[in-house]
Amino acid sequence: MRALVLGGNGFIGSHLVDLLLQRGHRVRVFDRSPNRYQAPYPEVDYRLGQFGDSAEIAEALQDIDVVFHLISTSVPSTSNLDPVADINGNLVGTVQLLQQMVKLGLKRIVYLSSGGTVYGNPTLEPVPETHPLHPICSYGVVKVAIENYLFMFQQLHGLLPTVLRASNPFGPRQGHIGVQGVIPTFLARLVQGDRLQIWGDGSVVRDYIYIADLVDLAMLAGESSATGVFNAGSGSGCSLNEIVRVIERISGRTVPVDYLPGRAFDVREITLDVRSAKAAFGWQPRTSIDEGIRRHWDWLQTISAHQ
Amino acid sequence: MRALVLGGNGFIGSHLVDLLLQRGHRVRVFDRSPNRYQAPYPEVDYRLGQFGDSAEIAEALQDIDVVFHLISTSVPSTSNLDPVADINGNLVGTVQLLQQMVKLGLKRIVYLSSGGTVYGNPTLEPVPETHPLHPICSYGVVKVAIENYLFMFQQLHGLLPTVLRASNPFGPRQGHIGVQGVIPTFLARLVQGDRLQIWGDGSVVRDYIYIADLVDLAMLAGESSATGVFNAGSGSGCSLNEIVRVIERISGRTVPVDYLPGRAFDVREITLDVRSAKAAFGWQPRTSIDEGIRRHWDWLQTISAHQ
Repeated sequence: MRALVLGGNGFIGSHLVDLLLQRGHRVRVFDRSPNRYQAPYPEVDYRLGQFGDSAEIAEALQDIDVVFHLISTSVPSTSNLDPVADINGNLVGTVQLLQQMVKLGLKRIVYLSSGGTVYGNPTLEPVPETHPLHPICSYGVVKVAIENYLFMFQQLHGLLPTVLRASNPFGPRQGHIGVQGVIPTFLARLVQGDRLQIWGDGSVVRDYIYIADLVDLAMLAGESSATGVFNAGSGSGCSLNEIVRVIERISGRTVPVDYLPGRAFDVREITLDVRSAKAAFGWQPRTSIDEGIRRHWDWLQTISAHQ
Repeated sequence: MRALVLGGNGFIGSHLVDLLLQRGHRVRVFDRSPNRYQAPYPEVDYRLGQFGDSAEIAEALQDIDVVFHLISTSVPSTSNLDPVADINGNLVGTVQLLQQMVKLGLKRIVYLSSGGTVYGNPTLEPVPETHPLHPICSYGVVKVAIENYLFMFQQLHGLLPTVLRASNPFGPRQGHIGVQGVIPTFLARLVQGDRLQIWGDGSVVRDYIYIADLVDLAMLAGESSATGVFNAGSGSGCSLNEIVRVIERISGRTVPVDYLPGRAFDVREITLDVRSAKAAFGWQPRTSIDEGIRRHWDWLQTISAHQ
């Protein structure tokens, strides 16, 4: 297939591009900047531009079979500071994308939603896709609105959307600027010799998925014709304190932690029920949290050695 | 209480203003234009302006206890033509309103959502508030996003929101330009001697609520401190063909109908379960569909006589 990866130079996108190329697909990438950790592939058609620019998006959509939409202009922890920017950047941009797809007769889209924020504080564990959506951060509110527009466009215009509600992906090439997730942040601080900071008492449980497992699911979804909403997590939960212990085992170091007051927009506990994705795509998350963190740690050693 | 009615010169707003004044409340109205059918009340503080203008909204919020937010810049049947305008007009405007309320320490808001669109095509009847939200028009997608922001602001900033998911209100002073509902449209066409048009075979069942019953609930909600989501309908359904028969009985005329092809964005059947609102506010819808249509018809005769 001819795939367009929106956000293909980012953390998740770059791994998806690797996998698509391995499987013999043709790949075009649309992103605002080059990948920070990899040289461009000669066989990939890179387009740099702004997501909000309809004309650039329309050009990027030419002769494409499947769109993978991984772009987000915000992250959960900062989206509440400026919800209007979140709406303008992500929601309006995505609706314009869908309108362009309808114009071009392009139907297939795989959208990366957020299993960690759309449900809010869940009332049962693990959370199935049918759980009510009560997001408590703007990032999650906008993801829900985008999902609703995708299925509205399916009903009205025959779009074929697959929504993957990802848990917390981690792994090599993830940014470690403190907003993309706790695992890269913890590992980067440890490499730098800094103390770790945990909001709350560290008992907060989340579902962490290794990047290779997530992009495996995204690619299987893009190759299939199954539409609908699918949770994309490891299916099991892990507390922040457990993550710290795994990191201590793998790094062989003692990890110093500062415990700070909890934050109102953080979901208390969430693990995703991933049976639907397994059944629909014959998919299986294969990487344990220990193995994933070990690979992430090894990669960090490599790039630290070169800096 | 000191009430601000956003959209207070519109159909629903003008009835709410009447009722608030009857109950001895102080009223300020913010709207883009004056009421079409009533002279202004000397005791009401009218502010004309644009909903998207944050400075005008901030001024209107001064010294207010309760905000009734009834403004919508779109309607269900046309919202899909320009979802971006729908997002910019309604969603961004409402988020800016909530940000202003937080700044001013103003907590109480009653928001008019849409029971007819947020659920999409329901899987059970009558529809309870806990039913999944699968809107199939932009109007409904944006209403869901606004509801989510309201409860996010409750969680993060202590806002006290009450959401009323109204079914199809009708009654005197309703616009009859063909987009505000079938009852005013049917009655207006009959007065003008035109044929009625029905999309589909007329078996589509909806929940119609007489305007006096809806604003009664809105006022009770504003006077109480109960937050959450409440359906606001009559609790019983009525098909388009039944409406036509009621109109024939009341007008004493034979009503000629053209049946046109159905539309993809119309929900097939929906009746709201209103037990939560009854329990929370001691409210009861009191006006039968026959009685409501008779009053609406009588009002139309009055204004036709003056034109």
